[in-house]
Amino acid sequence: MLRREPLNPPKYVYPVDEWRMVEKQYYPRFQAQMETLFSIGNGYLGMRGVCEEVMPCSENGTFINGFYESWPIVYGERAFGFATTGQTIVNVTDSKIIKLYVDDEPFSLSTANLISFERVLDMKAGTLNREVVWETASGKQVSIKSRRLISLEHRHLAAIEYEVTVLNAKAPVVISSEMENHKHTASKDNDPRKATGLKDRVLNPQVNFCEDSRILLAYVTNKSKIGLACGVEHQIETQCSYSYKSECSEDGGKVVYFVDAQPDVPIKLIKYISYHSAPGVNSVKELCTRAQITLDRAENLGFEAILASQKQYMDDFWHRSDIKVYGNPYDSDVTRTLELQQAIRFNLFQILQASGRVEGTGVPAKGLSGQAYEGQYFWDTEIYLLPFLIYTAPRTARNLLKFRYKILDKARQRARELNQKGALFPWRTINGEEASAYYAAGTAQYHINADIVYAIKKYVEVTGDTDFLYNEGVEILVETARLWVDLGFFQDEKFHIHGVTGPDEYTAVVNNNTYTNLMARENLWYAVQTVQALQKEDSEKFAALLHKTDFSVSEIEEWQKAADTMYLPYDENKGIHPQDDSFLSKKVWDFENTPKNKYPLLLNFHPLVIYRHQVIKQADVVLAMHLLGNEFSEEQKKRNFDYYDPLTTGDSSLSVCIQSILAFQLGYSQKAVEYAYFAVLMDLADIAGNTKDGCHMASMGGSWMVMVYGFAGMRDYNGKLSFNPRLPKGTKRLHFPLTIRSQRLEVDIRQEEVTYLLREGTELTIEHQNEEVHLQVGIPVCIKQKVPDFV
Amino acid sequence: MLRREPLNPPKYVYPVDEWRMVEKQYYPRFQAQMETLFSIGNGYLGMRGVCEEVMPCSENGTFINGFYESWPIVYGERAFGFATTGQTIVNVTDSKIIKLYVDDEPFSLSTANLISFERVLDMKAGTLNREVVWETASGKQVSIKSRRLISLEHRHLAAIEYEVTVLNAKAPVVISSEMENHKHTASKDNDPRKATGLKDRVLNPQVNFCEDSRILLAYVTNKSKIGLACGVEHQIETQCSYSYKSECSEDGGKVVYFVDAQPDVPIKLIKYISYHSAPGVNSVKELCTRAQITLDRAENLGFEAILASQKQYMDDFWHRSDIKVYGNPYDSDVTRTLELQQAIRFNLFQILQASGRVEGTGVPAKGLSGQAYEGQYFWDTEIYLLPFLIYTAPRTARNLLKFRYKILDKARQRARELNQKGALFPWRTINGEEASAYYAAGTAQYHINADIVYAIKKYVEVTGDTDFLYNEGVEILVETARLWVDLGFFQDEKFHIHGVTGPDEYTAVVNNNTYTNLMARENLWYAVQTVQALQKEDSEKFAALLHKTDFSVSEIEEWQKAADTMYLPYDENKGIHPQDDSFLSKKVWDFENTPKNKYPLLLNFHPLVIYRHQVIKQADVVLAMHLLGNEFSEEQKKRNFDYYDPLTTGDSSLSVCIQSILAFQLGYSQKAVEYAYFAVLMDLADIAGNTKDGCHMASMGGSWMVMVYGFAGMRDYNGKLSFNPRLPKGTKRLHFPLTIRSQRLEVDIRQEEVTYLLREGTELTIEHQNEEVHLQVGIPVCIKQKVPDFV
Repeated sequence: MLRREPLNPPKYVYPVDEWRMVEKQYYPRFQAQMETLFSIGNGYLGMRGVCEEVMPCSENGTFINGFYESWPIVYGERAFGFATTGQTIVNVTDSKIIKLYVDDEPFSLSTANLISFERVLDMKAGTLNREVVWETASGKQVSIKSRRLISLEHRHLAAIEYEVTVLNAKAPVVISSEMENHKHTASKDNDPRKATGLKDRVLNPQVNFCEDSRILLAYVTNKSKIGLACGVEHQIETQCSYSYKSECSEDGGKVVYFVDAQPDVPIKLIKYISYHSAPGVNSVKELCTRAQITLDRAENLGFEAILASQKQYMDDFWHRSDIKVYGNPYDSDVTRTLELQQAIRFNLFQILQASGRVEGTGVPAKGLSGQAYEGQYFWDTEIYLLPFLIYTAPRTARNLLKFRYKILDKARQRARELNQKGALFPWRTINGEEASAYYAAGTAQYHINADIVYAIKKYVEVTGDTDFLYNEGVEILVETARLWVDLGFFQDEKFHIHGVTGPDEYTAVVNNNTYTNLMARENLWYAVQTVQALQKEDSEKFAALLHKTDFSVSEIEEWQKAADTMYLPYDENKGIHPQDDSFLSKKVWDFENTPKNKYPLLLNFHPLVIYRHQVIKQADVVLAMHLLGNEFSEEQKKRNFDYYDPLTTGDSSLSVCIQSILAFQLGYSQKAVEYAYFAVLMDLADIAGNTKDGCHMASMGGSWMVMVYGFAGMRDYNGKLSFNPRLPKGTKRLHFPLTIRSQRLEVDIRQEEVTYLLREGTELTIEHQNEEVHLQVGIPVCIKQKVPDFV
Repeated sequence: MLRREPLNPPKYVYPVDEWRMVEKQYYPRFQAQMETLFSIGNGYLGMRGVCEEVMPCSENGTFINGFYESWPIVYGERAFGFATTGQTIVNVTDSKIIKLYVDDEPFSLSTANLISFERVLDMKAGTLNREVVWETASGKQVSIKSRRLISLEHRHLAAIEYEVTVLNAKAPVVISSEMENHKHTASKDNDPRKATGLKDRVLNPQVNFCEDSRILLAYVTNKSKIGLACGVEHQIETQCSYSYKSECSEDGGKVVYFVDAQPDVPIKLIKYISYHSAPGVNSVKELCTRAQITLDRAENLGFEAILASQKQYMDDFWHRSDIKVYGNPYDSDVTRTLELQQAIRFNLFQILQASGRVEGTGVPAKGLSGQAYEGQYFWDTEIYLLPFLIYTAPRTARNLLKFRYKILDKARQRARELNQKGALFPWRTINGEEASAYYAAGTAQYHINADIVYAIKKYVEVTGDTDFLYNEGVEILVETARLWVDLGFFQDEKFHIHGVTGPDEYTAVVNNNTYTNLMARENLWYAVQTVQALQKEDSEKFAALLHKTDFSVSEIEEWQKAADTMYLPYDENKGIHPQDDSFLSKKVWDFENTPKNKYPLLLNFHPLVIYRHQVIKQADVVLAMHLLGNEFSEEQKKRNFDYYDPLTTGDSSLSVCIQSILAFQLGYSQKAVEYAYFAVLMDLADIAGNTKDGCHMASMGGSWMVMVYGFAGMRDYNGKLSFNPRLPKGTKRLHFPLTIRSQRLEVDIRQEEVTYLLREGTELTIEHQNEEVHLQVGIPVCIKQKVPDFV
């Protein structure tokens, strides 16, 4: 159940539109949420949807993925092995600032008399646009149009077109294009999910340079020693006469244009922005050079060309990823239909913005739309985002898995700190070191190891990329398998794993968490299978593996034995899988006497109180039933779901999508659709109440899963693809593409028939409702069959 | 088992002596330990055994019990209900400083050519004495004798006599008597048991005043707003001519005497020191007045009279408390006998120094001999110190229990923060607020509630003080009983308590910790019994209780039911009481492959690693078997002890004394004696390796318990006193007094007979080896019986 009162989709996004998020009026009270929703980014660089004039603003933010400051984690009472290095994504120099003065009167949304206002996040164009007409105190009407983008094609480039026209008069117009460093202030908020904030100066100035209309600033972070260069360049196009001057200092710079505006003569300013970053204090000079090159190229290309390449990238993205949904779970009203369509696209668009140009890092929990969770990487990537990416953007998926390989050495070191062999991946990190300051809901989540391996397995199954598997993946498999075997122990001939925390963070440090044991077993089996295959298929790489991991073949037997005898808790009386050894012995949480405003519980009850009850933050056994559904019978699934669903608060945004998928499977149509709706609208309807802090990336990935694993009933255990589609009443049609081993499969579900078409590739075998379906490229297979009606 | 290698009694304390701790030579490498061992105090004020000249010094310290600074506890990841206010005892103005210059050459132990040296902690006189003869570079021999005491009679007074005699020459002598504030520096040590240290200025100056030979300084602490006044006064006695001057500043002051020393003519300086403290910024003026009064009185009394009153206080203490032991467990060699006798007296003496004048506070874990554990109060007081105090100093015991009553309101508030009815006492505190920054081994130790009630029950049984019980105690009983009933729940008709940590901190946050459940049951039963008795015996007080606690009589039934049906884990196969529901399912720690230098485990392994194994920091079930021994059969005790003892590391100093008592009971003579020896020599032999940080007060209380509950085999369940004495081989005789309901019982155990004598009082019935013994005052009952030989 979802215990929190879900909000209705807010009225600030309207009219609904298939491809655009539209804001028709400036509402101060939705400002913070809109800054999140209108964030733009490309996976490397991100900017919150704050207006060019900066003020009014709730929380401005410009983020570079992986660009962090480190700080010593302080403990009131320290213990051995506690994580030592906190890491927080830095709110870097804000380069998008453009301030406007007409008759020396500043333009500001909060004070301006607005004749018209529209802001649009254009998901087809990949731009954030704004058009306003402002009437000054003296009655002059000024049209201000801006378009902003962060280029997906050019990783280090952003650009803004800012066009001002005084419609009905002459006026002196000043356009001041600025850069400014963020002032860090410590957070006063007690919400543990928000960033702790960096108090001291983070960016130590190295370079500030200004020539003509170009400004270049460069810094090195104070403790983490990462270099940053950011620069801006300008082009102005107008028939009016103008002059300009530029200046810069350690913490900013500006290029100011003084224009004698003539009635109805547009003044268009193009601003190119570039960010480059790299580790090391000596990187700065090189970074400056690179920023210069990017700005030079942008200037040569011009804004229109950059816009065109953005459109092309978006077209390709939607071709690979778009989910088309016709009709709506609740009714067939046109607006509601569009609303669902819009919401799904918005989720996929935000995933693109968080991951498109990720190279060498992970995806932060909030993407680049906010500083919450310190900009760190969690299991969210592997379990919630990678399914979508594997099936639509395998290269991005590969980049993300390669990041895990990159930090394998640190994971090895962390395992040593915990007295363990093998490798233990950090629960949360930017630089590869464990940054979790509360181990019970952090480091204790050993399942992160198995989650990563699960994603590797899925990636290899869907892409066939044995190159990655045999070069990098297998080393992760060996080290994670080693950890499991070393962590657990045999008792009564069964392999037990004690003292871990599963996905449900309302239950901590337990023995034999069902999810963990199942996932560890999968991890071990896959390690055995892969190492044996490698030994057979490629003796050279196998020899390299032996050398690199100091591996002995006898280890395989241990893994096999531990996996084969893995202990899985089972309660004969209830016929369910207990979440862990002691879960069922606890008292059930008193839901009846817990008012809605006491959720999420974590903000209102001491962990000790929560931990001693049967109460679940997020799907745990239920998640295992999704990821490893083939390990459960339908009967078991039903009993487990019936038991755990009422105990689940959904206090984590990672829950409803999974609950929806299981409800779909079990035919709980009302719940399935309700949960699906919550997942898809998590941010747009501010279901979790903290959209202002950034997008819930995992839930966005979960939205895709709800459509594909839920509605379309896809199963892909061990790489075998099958579908068992359902359409909620009122939904007329669902259409989506999947990329499988470089082939393009299109699934088209209608109320009376389902069509599978291998659009690109050669051939593919899938299953439809347990019947094999052989697909030849270009030949649609249409199965006439009434798709079960839901609700 | 004790896994740490115990050291031998260090050679720096010799020759052994019944009543004195003697240091015959200045050893820099034992300096830190000696500063702890030679600490003096009276429970209100304490000074580490640093020399008057201050340098050389490892860690200087002057402490006032309960005089603390507060600080916000910082968490890397905060959660609801985490303790917010850290509290650290303040190292206050050092007023004992006396510096000596002869021919303008400073005297310092570290550089001086010492002709002779002796330092003595005189446990009969209650003084710390030093006598040295120093030969200056020019060959002048200078005798320096000092005696230092903190008055037990005059709570706010310390005094030093410092006598200098140039033996063989004339010389200009300068004696500078000083006061100086401590410079706070943050601790760089990672040992969680040490104080975190206060970085900023703590004492904000309010008054500094100097007139003649008197100096007065007053402060208010920065955050906790507690006022402090400290002053010194001087008397000089000499036939030599002298002059003096005095001065003071915000952070100190000095009175300097310039003496023309004549050969062999003594110069005696008496320094009186007074400290007063009280909460509130407005207290300072009043505190200054009080300090003046104390100094005036001291001056009038003179040093010899103060010395005499100290002696009288000590005589009374030893009369009530002394344990005489003749012979030694290991051999009958005279030195070894004396060593044991000396060690026991040292322990009792230090308890007196930590508790004698405690009024309105608790006893810090280290007494006033160091800043470790922040000077906070733990359950150590109730379970380890109170048995001794109840039987020898009931007024002190009452004061300590009254302190718990004083903080009852804060305990009520804390219970609310944890979503609980009733009251939850803080695991560690100075001001009554929970200061534990790691709840798993802090707040989760709910057993603190039952420990306090256990001590109240014992106190009332032994003293008959129903006045305290009915006025204060019963309110604590009501609120703690409420907490237990609210915390636990019924399952299968049994009352379960989940999510708590027992005494063993190597196992955290478990269900049905046997110790906790047993102690909670006792707590509930005693609450029922007391409330019912009060209702019968004193309707007025009962009405007051109803009013104060908003108590309804129906609650009693709930308590009774919860207690009567309390679930106690029992393992049929092993025939033992599992430490908690999941303890036996864990893997046994790999002791064989854990080298001795990896103990204590807490400094070498992550809590997750420790928690997932069967490994015990300190007696847990075994402690329950001591405190509630009547709830276990001998057979059960044996099986439990046999199971848990090998799993026990003794990484806590609270363990060996209890293990010894049980080993005595079970006839494990070698273990009994070995553990007894470790407990008694915990500090003198630096068994735990951290004597430098302060005395292990709990183990000192444990030493008394080892002698009385171990050797003498005393049992006092429900106030019924019985003895079953054993004497380790080589021990010839053991003699000790007990105060029972204001009567004085003397127990005299010899190898061939045991004599019980009610020296003061009227009559008393006890048991000797299950036989009732009726005692009439003044008539010794001598039981001829061979006391079992041990080892």
